[in-house]
Parts: sequence; structure tokens; C-alpha cells
Amino acid sequence: MEMPLVLLFQIIRKALTEEKHVSTKTSAADLVTETDHRVEDLIVSELRKRFPSHSPTWIIDPIDGTCNFVHRFPTVAVSIGFAVHQELEFGVIHHCTEDRLYTGRRGQGAFCNGQRLQVSRETDLAKALVLTEIGPKRDPDTLKVFLSNMERLLHAKAHGVRVIGSSTLALCYLASGAADAYYQFGLHCWDLAAATVIIREAGGIVIDTSGGPLDLMSCRVVAAGTREMAVLIAQALQTINYGRDDEK
Amino acid sequence: MEMPLVLLFQIIRKALTEEKHVSTKTSAADLVTETDHRVEDLIVSELRKRFPSHSPTWIIDPIDGTCNFVHRFPTVAVSIGFAVHQELEFGVIHHCTEDRLYTGRRGQGAFCNGQRLQVSRETDLAKALVLTEIGPKRDPDTLKVFLSNMERLLHAKAHGVRVIGSSTLALCYLASGAADAYYQFGLHCWDLAAATVIIREAGGIVIDTSGGPLDLMSCRVVAAGTREMAVLIAQALQTINYGRDDEK
Repeated sequence: MEMPLVLLFQIIRKALTEEKHVSTKTSAADLVTETDHRVEDLIVSELRKRFPSHSPTWIIDPIDGTCNFVHRFPTVAVSIGFAVHQELEFGVIHHCTEDRLYTGRRGQGAFCNGQRLQVSRETDLAKALVLTEIGPKRDPDTLKVFLSNMERLLHAKAHGVRVIGSSTLALCYLASGAADAYYQFGLHCWDLAAATVIIREAGGIVIDTSGGPLDLMSCRVVAAGTREMAVLIAQALQTINYGRDDEK
Repeated sequence: MEMPLVLLFQIIRKALTEEKHVSTKTSAADLVTETDHRVEDLIVSELRKRFPSHSPTWIIDPIDGTCNFVHRFPTVAVSIGFAVHQELEFGVIHHCTEDRLYTGRRGQGAFCNGQRLQVSRETDLAKALVLTEIGPKRDPDTLKVFLSNMERLLHAKAHGVRVIGSSTLALCYLASGAADAYYQFGLHCWDLAAATVIIREAGGIVIDTSGGPLDLMSCRVVAAGTREMAVLIAQALQTINYGRDDEK
């Protein structure tokens, strides 16, 4: 995969400097660009060529952080996850503007540019840096719950909440120990697949917002360095219903 | 300043990998580290040595994004502004983990690593990427207004709101055209001084949240690529009173 990955990253970096032709997916905040389609086609054709007999599932986000990408806000990633019999096997996420490659393989650890990743061991919500994303639904009721969830964490005296505009890169920061927790409603299996392997291999926890096991298709997640932190976050959250990826 | 700057950045990058000894300023979210003090001492003594006869004012934030710094979240900057007779003359901001140096000098343009900066020309709030920060006050009433301001912008269908944990770097992204507007209550003159020169020299607008001229000591700001956008943001905001930097 090495040569094609380099090619992909060149396409994305070049596109970051160009005017964008944008269409919308579900709402004004949910943007798709030509580059999304171009990167997706490239990844899929390359995977088909290299692994013609593969029956496993590749779960790809050609550009995560599309709204950032459209605005040339330098927090944009490509995410490629790989599952066999519904078990996540490995994940690759590339921070396109900073040339950081995050990788994780089941049982073999997680790395960023060759350096081993290790999650934070924090268990106290009052010492936590928490990451989240707004999500694509922007109707008044959904926004109220989104903001109320942020309010609950700030009332619990979390050090801070960050919204960087890329779920996969936020999850990579969590895997690096640069934040203590992440939660979101309204993300998709292609945002989660690669990052889940990377976080688990860095020693972290990825669960459902109910506190139960992760369901990759449920459009919701809590991730943290420790199980205690993940449970505290899950308990603080009010649910936003985004349906399921396998019912759309 | 070149050698000492390199030295400063080395101290900060090294400190980012170490355990932190943290004290708090006004609230649990307002953190100060040894490195803040060390970097401030170094900058001040170097400026005194090099410019012994200077009566102008140096306005310095030794580490902007201290909460990020404590968590090793890689969005941390050093900001140095310079004013003569209360007129901002130049500003230097360094993104410590990405080695990006933003500079601006009155009448001479703004640059990042030598590349000229140009703000966004967007005037439509419904196409805007907006940046803000939570601010140090975390009492329930302040949080309510902070969240309600974010809600107003999302109701106005802004593409997104980002919270990255460093005012000065958010303002540098604005100067680069990577976002369309920035607003905050509760930031200080040392967060604003250098960034204001850089934004104005990149063609942008820096005003008070009332819509009137910027008051560097008023702990509040709206910045945007265009005056139209700055006014739209100012009109949408409800005020949070943080007092003044010159009355503390």
C-alpha cells in the first residue's frame, strides 16, 4: 500500500489549496467534495487490485473532516479499517496536513510514525480533557441535547472540551494520550473502524454510549483511556438518536 | 531573536513530553505550569538584554493553550506582541508542535513560515466556519451564555464551530483563511496583541463584541475575514462580563 498512500496524501494536500466544488449529504453541515469521491475510488481500486481474493470488509472514510477540508482548516484525515468476520483487524489513519500516520493491528500495538501509542490512565473526570464533535443534525432539538451534554461535562469540572472537526483525528489524539475521553452521536462505522483498533491497541476502551459493548453500526461511541473514565462519560450523556448505519 | 526563539521552542517541545507540575490561576480550568514561568523569564530577560533602552511594551503569552499543554494535546503556542504608544506594531506566534511561525508587522503583511497570509472573503454566516474558546469562568450562568452563543451560531446555520484550546492559534488559522470568524469572552491582552497585528495584516477585521473598535484590555473580541462577517457575529452574541485587564 505504500506508494498509493503517498499518492493519496498528495492528492488531498494539493486539493486543500484549491477551490472546492461542494455538494451536501444530509444537511448544510454535511459536505461532500470531488476529492472525497476521487480518494474513495482510488483506495477501492487499489485494494481490489492488490487483494483480488479478499472477502473481508474494508471500511473507508476517504476524507474525514470534510467541512474542515472545504474551509482548508488543517485537520483532515483518511481512515481505512479492515475487518474479518465482523472482527476489526487493523486500522490506518493519516493526518493529511501534518504527515502523521497512525496504525493499529490487533494484538500488535498501535503506532504513530513508528512511535508506540499509549492512552492516558486518568480516571477522574475533573482532570479530563474531553473531545467531541457536533454531528450532522442541526435541528433545534438535537442542538439542545448536544449543548446540554457539553454543559454536563463542564459542570462536572472537566478541564476542557475540544471540537476539532475530525472524529478520526480526535480518536487518534485519544490513542496518543493527548486527551482522556471522546464521545459522539452521529458518527458512522467508517469514522470508527480504524480508530477503534488503534485505541484498543494503545490500551484504551471503546464502548457504546449506553455503557455496553461497542456497536459499530449504532452511530454513537464513548472512548477513553480507562474503563472508569468511559463509564463516567457514558453516565453523563443524554442520547441523540441518529438511527443505525445498517438501516439506511 | 532567532537563537533564543529556537531555544524556547526546544524547552516547550521537551516539556510537552514530561510530567507537569500544575498550579491553578482563577479556576480549575485555568492552569499554570513551571514551563509558563520558565518561558516567560527567558523571553523577558532576552528582550531586556537585546533592547535595553526600549520604552515600548512587550505583550507576552509564554504558553497559550496551557490546558492543552498539560494534557500534551498538540495545539500550543508562544505569543509575543509589541506596541509603541498603545499602537500594535508587530506580532510573532509560534505553533510549538508543528514548527509554524506566524509573523505580522504593521504595514508590511503577515506570513506563516515565509508564506503570505490572506483571510477568507466570506460574508455569509451560513457558509462560515467559526472558532471560539470556552474561557476560564465555569460557573453555571457563564456556561449557559457560552453555550447559548454557540447555539445561536449553529441556528444561523454556520457550517461548524471549532474549539481547539488555543486562542492565539485559532486567530492564526483565521489569519490564514482556514476559518471565517473567531469570537471569545474571557481572553486577555496577551492572547490578542500579536494575533491582532497578524490578522489585520492578512486583510482581516478585529473588533469588540459590541461591534465597536477593539479594546485590547476588555477581555473580549470578534475577528473575521470581512467586516460584514464580524458584524454578523457580534450581533449574534450575548455578552459575558469578564471585567478588564487594566482593572485587575
